[in-house]
Amino acid sequence: MPSSTTPHFEEPLADRESWTTERCSIGRALDVVGPRSAMLLLREAYYGTTRFDDFAHRVGITESVAAGRLRALVAAGLLDRRPYQEPGRRTRHEYVLTESGAELVPALLALMQWGDRHLQEPTGPPLALTHTDCGAPVSVEIRCEAGHRLAPGDLSIAPGAAWRRR
Amino acid sequence: MPSSTTPHFEEPLADRESWTTERCSIGRALDVVGPRSAMLLLREAYYGTTRFDDFAHRVGITESVAAGRLRALVAAGLLDRRPYQEPGRRTRHEYVLTESGAELVPALLALMQWGDRHLQEPTGPPLALTHTDCGAPVSVEIRCEAGHRLAPGDLSIAPGAAWRRR
Repeated sequence: MPSSTTPHFEEPLADRESWTTERCSIGRALDVVGPRSAMLLLREAYYGTTRFDDFAHRVGITESVAAGRLRALVAAGLLDRRPYQEPGRRTRHEYVLTESGAELVPALLALMQWGDRHLQEPTGPPLALTHTDCGAPVSVEIRCEAGHRLAPGDLSIAPGAAWRRR
Repeated sequence: MPSSTTPHFEEPLADRESWTTERCSIGRALDVVGPRSAMLLLREAYYGTTRFDDFAHRVGITESVAAGRLRALVAAGLLDRRPYQEPGRRTRHEYVLTESGAELVPALLALMQWGDRHLQEPTGPPLALTHTDCGAPVSVEIRCEAGHRLAPGDLSIAPGAAWRRR
């Protein structure tokens, strides 16, 4: 029996045999950012890390893994690779979050929020996030365009433009 | 140089050498739900899938992978395993999202939202999410307790209770 957290599926989705999750955007997103180190490199880019050595060091991965993952994140449009040069040294590259990469920050913060609640000491999380302008604590919320704050069971799911019958 | 999407780090976090990301809640969350199939099993549990065969089939994984991942998600408290029995058949088990599992739905929907924007046809996504009560489209947002909607660069990050100097 579905629990109260289950969304309402509009017709014809209620017939689960009529559709597959083949085109699922969650699955596609995980194809790009699924590897643990990919997510953590994006966290670091959000935190302002730009240099190759810092990425590898702060994520705790080898330079070879970092090189491969950074290349994949650049190819996927999440990071921008830009040349920079310090006086008297050869040109190197830095990695900066693109607009598309920044649009993934809610997913990172949603994971942080869940980890903060369920995987930290009862005393509290290691990092405290607030709104710079007003100082109020920050959270990731499901909202509708009318401004209502939603629980998972408050959603309805209908076929979208790219939906295909099985 | 940090981009405008970078949060403001309050002292002493601005000195990146003074802290590590060892206790990071994003990393800890990914230890639990990082594997692609773990996230997709949680998606299915949110969608109302309860039976073992349906999980394996709809996520597109082998029964052996499904068994291992479901066991890990139960152990981590994200799914509840409950006995059920159909007349004349032996007792089987169904898997239902726990409250902790439901608290991960914003992360799933944030990934869906990103995939919808960046990895689908321009015509639109396969699934359309609305608020059941009012019909308005749904999104995942970063908000502060005062109700302001935030961009990634609007956040300040300070040491929390579990923060430790390196």
